[in-house]
Amino acid sequence: MLAQATRAQKDAGLHAMADALAKAEAAVLEANQGDVAAARQAGTNAALIDRLRLSADRVGAMVDGLRDLAGLPDPVGDVARGWTTPAGVEIRQVRVPFGVVGIIYEARPNVTADAAGICVKSGNAALLRGSSSAAQSNAAIAAALQSGLLVADLPADAVQLVPGPRAATAELMTARGLVDVLIPRGGAGLIETVVRESQVPVIETGVGNCHLYVDASSDQEMALRILLDAKTSRPSVCNAVETLLVHADAASTFVPRALAALAQAGVRVHGDPRIGAYGDVTPATEADFAEEYLSLDIAAAVVDSLDDALAHIRRYSSGHSETIVTESQSAARRFTAEVDAAAVLVNASSRFVDGGEFGFGAEIGISTQKLHARGPMGLPEMTSTKYVLIGSGQVR
Amino acid sequence: MLAQATRAQKDAGLHAMADALAKAEAAVLEANQGDVAAARQAGTNAALIDRLRLSADRVGAMVDGLRDLAGLPDPVGDVARGWTTPAGVEIRQVRVPFGVVGIIYEARPNVTADAAGICVKSGNAALLRGSSSAAQSNAAIAAALQSGLLVADLPADAVQLVPGPRAATAELMTARGLVDVLIPRGGAGLIETVVRESQVPVIETGVGNCHLYVDASSDQEMALRILLDAKTSRPSVCNAVETLLVHADAASTFVPRALAALAQAGVRVHGDPRIGAYGDVTPATEADFAEEYLSLDIAAAVVDSLDDALAHIRRYSSGHSETIVTESQSAARRFTAEVDAAAVLVNASSRFVDGGEFGFGAEIGISTQKLHARGPMGLPEMTSTKYVLIGSGQVR
Repeated sequence: MLAQATRAQKDAGLHAMADALAKAEAAVLEANQGDVAAARQAGTNAALIDRLRLSADRVGAMVDGLRDLAGLPDPVGDVARGWTTPAGVEIRQVRVPFGVVGIIYEARPNVTADAAGICVKSGNAALLRGSSSAAQSNAAIAAALQSGLLVADLPADAVQLVPGPRAATAELMTARGLVDVLIPRGGAGLIETVVRESQVPVIETGVGNCHLYVDASSDQEMALRILLDAKTSRPSVCNAVETLLVHADAASTFVPRALAALAQAGVRVHGDPRIGAYGDVTPATEADFAEEYLSLDIAAAVVDSLDDALAHIRRYSSGHSETIVTESQSAARRFTAEVDAAAVLVNASSRFVDGGEFGFGAEIGISTQKLHARGPMGLPEMTSTKYVLIGSGQVR
Repeated sequence: MLAQATRAQKDAGLHAMADALAKAEAAVLEANQGDVAAARQAGTNAALIDRLRLSADRVGAMVDGLRDLAGLPDPVGDVARGWTTPAGVEIRQVRVPFGVVGIIYEARPNVTADAAGICVKSGNAALLRGSSSAAQSNAAIAAALQSGLLVADLPADAVQLVPGPRAATAELMTARGLVDVLIPRGGAGLIETVVRESQVPVIETGVGNCHLYVDASSDQEMALRILLDAKTSRPSVCNAVETLLVHADAASTFVPRALAALAQAGVRVHGDPRIGAYGDVTPATEADFAEEYLSLDIAAAVVDSLDDALAHIRRYSSGHSETIVTESQSAARRFTAEVDAAAVLVNASSRFVDGGEFGFGAEIGISTQKLHARGPMGLPEMTSTKYVLIGSGQVR
């Protein structure tokens, strides 16, 4: 059983999975060409096809990811805390695997290897429900991973694809007692469906309608640098900024520079009228402030106070990452205390809210819910705990 | 806002709630007499009426409970961990309240005060959905608690009853985004309904079909002492033992003594045929092994090996607390590693699996699920966390 495997066994398994996947590169790429051809024929858009397409480099990245996991500490067996009761009973709270983790994800076939690797390392069996558009790619990857597990004397069914029609997803969501946790990875629609319909506990990940608030007293050079990084360094990810809020006192100096810099970076600004007063912008609608663009678009508004900024964020935030740029200690303190999000940043780019930047080594996603894990989820977040009590005959 | 209140403000609030509840004793008891009379008229059974009935002592215990909470450390603001990234961004993971906690509970009106107090201390607003049979008692208690909050300049609506018909429970279960966590407290039926129907994240608590396994090599005096304590010291609670499993090698010496001691303690044994060979028992059916009696009944079986004991527990356990009595180090190690439960005990009574015994000071329940919290839940388990990142202009 994988849950009882030692770190040495699991790490050997990860290396064997990596070896097998490297060896299966040609088969995986061929299967992927089948998926890509079918997607083209179905008229799938170019962005989706790009996410679906594998290359030798992308397969290599999956292989490297599995090897990297082998190098990370094993969370299982960690003693989170321990103490002895007055009666002399020793109590330890020990990290244990969840058991069976279901992962429901969209087009990217690399999730098959990444998620399987994280589950194996954390001692969890993985039930992987990928998109039908990537079915051939996922099957080829999973077959390779399973053959690696067998080489390492680990149970091949610790990594399983959940094939079949849409009903299979529903089964996964109602498999209470068989599946311990469900993690949806993908767009807002997928996540919303899983959260609403699942009877199995769910960890919500990844929707980021993130705000950057430039306070009255701020270093405007710094604000500009953070704005450009947070918007343009990788617009398609959940920790990219989607709305810029500027304090009225900073607007006349900051907004013109921001508009110029954003224009130069190819970003389209959807501004309210007070932003529009400083330059040519697309008029922002209510929907713009609610939207996670994931593209070179940004909504922007001028606010009259920190209170108004907090109210705007309370209304539109998806609870992912919210940033203030300020030189005011009291504004920073209020912002970090009052904004309700997985991460709250002062004078740093929201792009730092990421398992890699946090030093976690591996990340299954960024939780935007409050139960169990909030923010980037590393290997320890893929475990539960168990209390072990050792006595010498104590009774109450 | 309660979430931003300091410990001093919250503790003053708890003392004011205690004062107000003490002052309202007569009104609370009168309201309770109305509930009890109505329950009698409706033909409610004696055990339920006993749970419903308040006395001056029970009101006093609620008042003391609120004062005790004021003496406990505040989990909010605790830094769970913190570090600095290579880029120099300081990261802290800070405990924060969930926000709004819904608690759905059955007859005992004392839960109204206990749950409200735990929520206030942990900075959470409490939406309390009690049983309609306790409606008058709950209303009187909640009115007192709210007047106490007002005296302490805290928002009275931080503690609210959810009145109305059954549909109100359904509303609570679908209030995603408004209610952050739901905690059902009561019987297996209530918990099952909430887990199945809720779209709000749920923390499952309290169903305990707990096993005591007496291994081949065990101190039988110790096993007997633990058996009697775990079964009879308080049979109605979730950490009481419900099934006794005895290794075949220990059966001939242990079972006769156990049957005699259990009979003397007034416990009815539902035994399999191999237990029946040693004395007069009620024949056990499949249902007996699946049942959480919560009474002076126990199921019992002889097993041929540790493996058989583990298999039995795997099949019937509700994942609460499982005990082995053994002198074998290897048996203890296998049992603690392989049994999948919130608590696994070696040579100690399962009655120790309790927030009070754990030294938590307050307990909202014992979680039998794997997400967020598992085992006794104290004040820290009533919080989420937030990452606070402080930089000096860092970008990626």
